[in-house]
Amino acid sequence: MNLPLGFRYSATFAGIRKVMKDDLALIVSDTHAIAAAVFTQNRVVAGPVEVARRNVRAAPNRMRAILINAGNANCATKTSEKVAMETSRATAKAIGAKPEEVLPASTGVIGVELDARLIIDALPALVAGLSADRFDDAARAILTTDLVMKTANAQVKGARIAGMTKGSGMIHPRMATTLAFVMTDAVIAAGALRSALKRACEKTFNRISVDGDTSTNDTLAVLANGASGVRPRVTVFEAALTEVLESLARQIVKDGEGAKKLITIDVEGAASERAAEKIARSIANSPLVKTAIAGSDPNWGRILSAAGNAGVTFNPRHINIDFQGVPVCRGGLAADFSETELQAKLDEPECSVKFTIQGRGRGRARFWTCDFTEDYIRINASYRT
Amino acid sequence: MNLPLGFRYSATFAGIRKVMKDDLALIVSDTHAIAAAVFTQNRVVAGPVEVARRNVRAAPNRMRAILINAGNANCATKTSEKVAMETSRATAKAIGAKPEEVLPASTGVIGVELDARLIIDALPALVAGLSADRFDDAARAILTTDLVMKTANAQVKGARIAGMTKGSGMIHPRMATTLAFVMTDAVIAAGALRSALKRACEKTFNRISVDGDTSTNDTLAVLANGASGVRPRVTVFEAALTEVLESLARQIVKDGEGAKKLITIDVEGAASERAAEKIARSIANSPLVKTAIAGSDPNWGRILSAAGNAGVTFNPRHINIDFQGVPVCRGGLAADFSETELQAKLDEPECSVKFTIQGRGRGRARFWTCDFTEDYIRINASYRT
Repeated sequence: MNLPLGFRYSATFAGIRKVMKDDLALIVSDTHAIAAAVFTQNRVVAGPVEVARRNVRAAPNRMRAILINAGNANCATKTSEKVAMETSRATAKAIGAKPEEVLPASTGVIGVELDARLIIDALPALVAGLSADRFDDAARAILTTDLVMKTANAQVKGARIAGMTKGSGMIHPRMATTLAFVMTDAVIAAGALRSALKRACEKTFNRISVDGDTSTNDTLAVLANGASGVRPRVTVFEAALTEVLESLARQIVKDGEGAKKLITIDVEGAASERAAEKIARSIANSPLVKTAIAGSDPNWGRILSAAGNAGVTFNPRHINIDFQGVPVCRGGLAADFSETELQAKLDEPECSVKFTIQGRGRGRARFWTCDFTEDYIRINASYRT
Repeated sequence: MNLPLGFRYSATFAGIRKVMKDDLALIVSDTHAIAAAVFTQNRVVAGPVEVARRNVRAAPNRMRAILINAGNANCATKTSEKVAMETSRATAKAIGAKPEEVLPASTGVIGVELDARLIIDALPALVAGLSADRFDDAARAILTTDLVMKTANAQVKGARIAGMTKGSGMIHPRMATTLAFVMTDAVIAAGALRSALKRACEKTFNRISVDGDTSTNDTLAVLANGASGVRPRVTVFEAALTEVLESLARQIVKDGEGAKKLITIDVEGAASERAAEKIARSIANSPLVKTAIAGSDPNWGRILSAAGNAGVTFNPRHINIDFQGVPVCRGGLAADFSETELQAKLDEPECSVKFTIQGRGRGRARFWTCDFTEDYIRINASYRT
């Protein structure tokens, strides 16, 4: 991977996970970086999210590091915020930065006290291990029950963007936390980075669904340290960032717990993008739709019914639906198609659903979800212990 | 069962289902009945629902019959509304009523043409079979993949209320249709019946969830023929109606596809009933919560997180959560409880979750849902054919 200049990465096992596998990662920018981040909208917010939000606000132009632990969400405990502050402070000290220049993030079980000592004791080894080529080690350390590492990168006029993420929907025994960290050596202003992240996130991470839940710890952060000296046009940078985020978001859905298929849902012809997005989200979140696709069942009635529950007005007689490019519903009625042939096509690992409202509506939206299998229940229903 | 006077019931096999099992039911009031009904809020509405809604509006004081078929939803087809009108008209003729005095309802697969002929040809046998004691036959004929018949009844000052319902959430290969029909021989005015039904429904059928979906065919209708000559106070009648509807609604959840447990969720201390209901609904619809309870996992973090996604403001530090009466979370933090003992309690067929916001909020709501098991996926993911 062609990594952005001026960043180093490290990972170690601090004893937070029950299994001996790296559970602590550190990303350091050699110089001050511009930072932008979006966080969970859940009413219940983990301590590290509170601290990270404060720090990004306090030091948007001089972020130095991201400290991530897996195995404990550091949420809904007495010491949640205190632990996030203490460990950020210790990390800052170890790399010669100020406390607000470190962004903490956690993922794992909630309601269990996280011992700050475990992290603080691991810091010397973590910092000593920092290296420009340990990107993948960090990307692996932040995973929980993910089956695969998730990274993506792009080039933009000679500058580079590289991202890592974790999450596979409902993660037992943990919450469905999504974490994503993107590094770039492009030169970009803080305000422009914030807007670019917000818009790119809206079309990528906010358009995926494994189960419709939001975790207490969701964090997506971008650091831009300018080390390449390249200042791309903001629209060009945003396009490259969107490409990286889309790749990461799709990787999360593809690795959704128990999922066998990645489903892309396109809605077209709605009155507005917002209306299209609501319909797409309703289809993507319907267990009825997700189980049908798991069984390669071209049951378009479930799509129509899920769309009808989106809270958006449309005339059912103006609806066309396609599965895998095959028309299954035209004008709200069954189209003439071979069920057997389509079932075979739906056995593929990627499925597409297109929902079109006939007429002149310009609103369109794309959404990604995964199918819903018995494995998903098996994983999530086992005892926590 | 102590049945209301002046109603007769019948059921027969009309050849709509693939298996030879009664699929057509008829409920007749010997005299004109007051009618009130509530229907699906899905944007996609089946023909019989359109016709039923029109008829209840046209003849609220002289409804004579309800005609129900299972095996085909008569929805999203070219002839949907026409079939509903033709079969209502033929039924009216057969019992000596006007077309608008018959309320049609359908449940089954959507997008497949329903042949009106099948119903019309079955009508002579259906009408000939009408009898005051065939309530259960009708209640059985309206079932789809339900495992058990669902009926309930109450007495109110010497008048009687009897109801039947169907539905087990996601019903493969059909939609998640809920149908419920309640007969009473109490004397009650049309307006009072409508208000009583609306309020009773709000606290019962609108407070259950198997999967969060709404079908294109949902119908809940009450017929009051006054045959007992008893005129109970409206509040007393409403209480009895609520009791019948609550029993029917709980039976649906208990028979939810793949469900092994009935879960009762109580939310207290919210700012308003509406806020309490939103929190309860969010908990009830969370696959995260439903799979945890399937596995008898007292994972209160999932409850807290689901509540945090309800769109209601609360301070997480003011939250208490109890499972089966056992405190598991106090002030947003883990309470001291024996996980092993609680797991054993959660193995019972009925589970309770209590979510309390500390303080002086008076808003409370009760909601019912079921657990989420592998069987549910198995049933819903198989090929439709």
